[in-house]
Amino acid sequence: MKPIVPCSGISRRALLSALALLPVLSGTLLPTPSPAQTAAPGGLLASWNDGPAKQAIVDFVRATIDRASPSYVFPEDRIAVFDQDGTLWVEHPMYTQVVYCLERVPAVVEKRLELRNAQPFKTVLSGNREAMARLTMRDLEKILAATLTGMTVEEFNAEAKKWMETAQHPRWNRPYTELAYQPMLEVLRYLRDNAYKTYIVTGGGQDFVRVYAQQVYGIPPEQVVGTAGGTKYGYAKDGNPFLTKEPKLLLNDNNAGKPEGIHLMIGRRPYAAFGNSTGDRQMLEWTGAGAGARLKMLVYHDDKDREYAYGPAGGLPDTKVGTFSDSLMTEAKSKGWTVISMKNDWKHIFAFEG
Amino acid sequence: MKPIVPCSGISRRALLSALALLPVLSGTLLPTPSPAQTAAPGGLLASWNDGPAKQAIVDFVRATIDRASPSYVFPEDRIAVFDQDGTLWVEHPMYTQVVYCLERVPAVVEKRLELRNAQPFKTVLSGNREAMARLTMRDLEKILAATLTGMTVEEFNAEAKKWMETAQHPRWNRPYTELAYQPMLEVLRYLRDNAYKTYIVTGGGQDFVRVYAQQVYGIPPEQVVGTAGGTKYGYAKDGNPFLTKEPKLLLNDNNAGKPEGIHLMIGRRPYAAFGNSTGDRQMLEWTGAGAGARLKMLVYHDDKDREYAYGPAGGLPDTKVGTFSDSLMTEAKSKGWTVISMKNDWKHIFAFEG
Repeated sequence: MKPIVPCSGISRRALLSALALLPVLSGTLLPTPSPAQTAAPGGLLASWNDGPAKQAIVDFVRATIDRASPSYVFPEDRIAVFDQDGTLWVEHPMYTQVVYCLERVPAVVEKRLELRNAQPFKTVLSGNREAMARLTMRDLEKILAATLTGMTVEEFNAEAKKWMETAQHPRWNRPYTELAYQPMLEVLRYLRDNAYKTYIVTGGGQDFVRVYAQQVYGIPPEQVVGTAGGTKYGYAKDGNPFLTKEPKLLLNDNNAGKPEGIHLMIGRRPYAAFGNSTGDRQMLEWTGAGAGARLKMLVYHDDKDREYAYGPAGGLPDTKVGTFSDSLMTEAKSKGWTVISMKNDWKHIFAFEG
Repeated sequence: MKPIVPCSGISRRALLSALALLPVLSGTLLPTPSPAQTAAPGGLLASWNDGPAKQAIVDFVRATIDRASPSYVFPEDRIAVFDQDGTLWVEHPMYTQVVYCLERVPAVVEKRLELRNAQPFKTVLSGNREAMARLTMRDLEKILAATLTGMTVEEFNAEAKKWMETAQHPRWNRPYTELAYQPMLEVLRYLRDNAYKTYIVTGGGQDFVRVYAQQVYGIPPEQVVGTAGGTKYGYAKDGNPFLTKEPKLLLNDNNAGKPEGIHLMIGRRPYAAFGNSTGDRQMLEWTGAGAGARLKMLVYHDDKDREYAYGPAGGLPDTKVGTFSDSLMTEAKSKGWTVISMKNDWKHIFAFEG
């Protein structure tokens, strides 16, 4: 098997075009505030404006929890899946995990001195954005492999957790953990309050997202499905076993990989699916092809003032992050998927605005 | 990647040596009775005799649910894992899934006529046990591939479910679903009643075990980790999507594959692990290497009258099913794992005895 690392499904253009927007490589300084995972004041889906999107959610839940409804779903069958980047939290200017990988390079090089003068690490350390923008996909895979594999699972968890506690988004100067969309946190809570088991199904690295999913979304590690690499079991000198993260791709959880990953990790078809890009197309198709009531929703980034506008809404033409193509919009319309307009459907986008 | 099918980790000798004990290939006739998954009469762990094994379970649960205990475990962290074959139900004379694969051959050949005169299918159809005992591992892989892959996930689920409803064990002439160990069903229930999330972690096929795990063990599909093959997303002529089971091994959930599978599917270290063979060794090691109270138990088949005796307990020397080697017993003693004697620790083995 060709060695590939988790998150290699991310397009090179997405990474490179966003580099110019990054702050200088460094951990940042503020402590993490308490998580945004709280019930909104003002009741059910309080950050949503009345409209077809909110109504679709409420109608779906009511239809599937009412024993008298023809669309009733037994509590043990209630599965809801959510893409993460661009659906549950901000994905611009760059996937948070990619920022993590780039910012981990200095620490990795400190432990592996032979990399200091080797490419692409030398270029990343230089901070020269123009040179970084010329990195190839193979270069990026080397960076991902060096920063996401080769350590024990505990070491990785500790490193990623520590980084998440201080790293900040360059636009809002707040921890990434505060950039979850408040309306979506309300949907997660609303579904769980009605016995739905909520899963993240992300193209991002499964291990990375598991580090903060409980804190940010109230979702435990075993309910995070993502792009996943293998691990290798071994023994330390004292005989204690450990698992090492390997540069071997088991699941590329994007596009067709999403329903395939859902089958592998969950084993049954969801009743509700939320996405925001072409990478979520097959997950919504798979969900929608089930019998009975199925909720299929797409978050549409059309709010350049409060967040970003991209896809058919225009703006940010140079990036492939969160591609919302015309064909996706066409399919959404033809299949009755509900498109959520961030601009029109959401009263607040972030908890800190409220 | 070399095409390998789920459950190819099963040894050839295990398969072949057991063939002589099989009934003629055929579905059997009785309807499935209601599942054995019930609370035992007579209270907590009622099918267990008092002794060190029962005490170890009770002590572990008490220590981890008492907030005043130094071994207290938060409810959301309470994960318990169970091997299936030989730990939760009977594995002799042959893994149930292998019986399924062999008995599916006639139906597969009926749909794929080109296989009728091809080996190894011709041999299986002949019913000639001596010829079947000469099948190679490659032959067996062909049988597993033909019966476990190539169909949609829904078709497989329907076929396996139908078979489980009528197939019977040759010794007890009862459905396999009645051959779950009543004392272990009580442990599952006891742990769940104390907020433990119970998982099956099996060398058997993940999709196969998921078909009946809820009915037999009260364990939902997403809490079954097993040897898993890939699926492929595609579209029917009407545009509807489907997932096809592929002959591509993603996870060989045996030996070191068990902690690796636990990391992939659960993402954290269990607090309790139950096994019965060398294939469970690393799962128990991995569980035991965690901090605080950890329960590590091995079911030991030493009851030839009520079930079977094998491993160091003697008997059945020709089979590799459920190998309990001397070295496993040595490791269990040195690491303080608790060995459950079926003969001494269990009052009843099956619900139908009670």
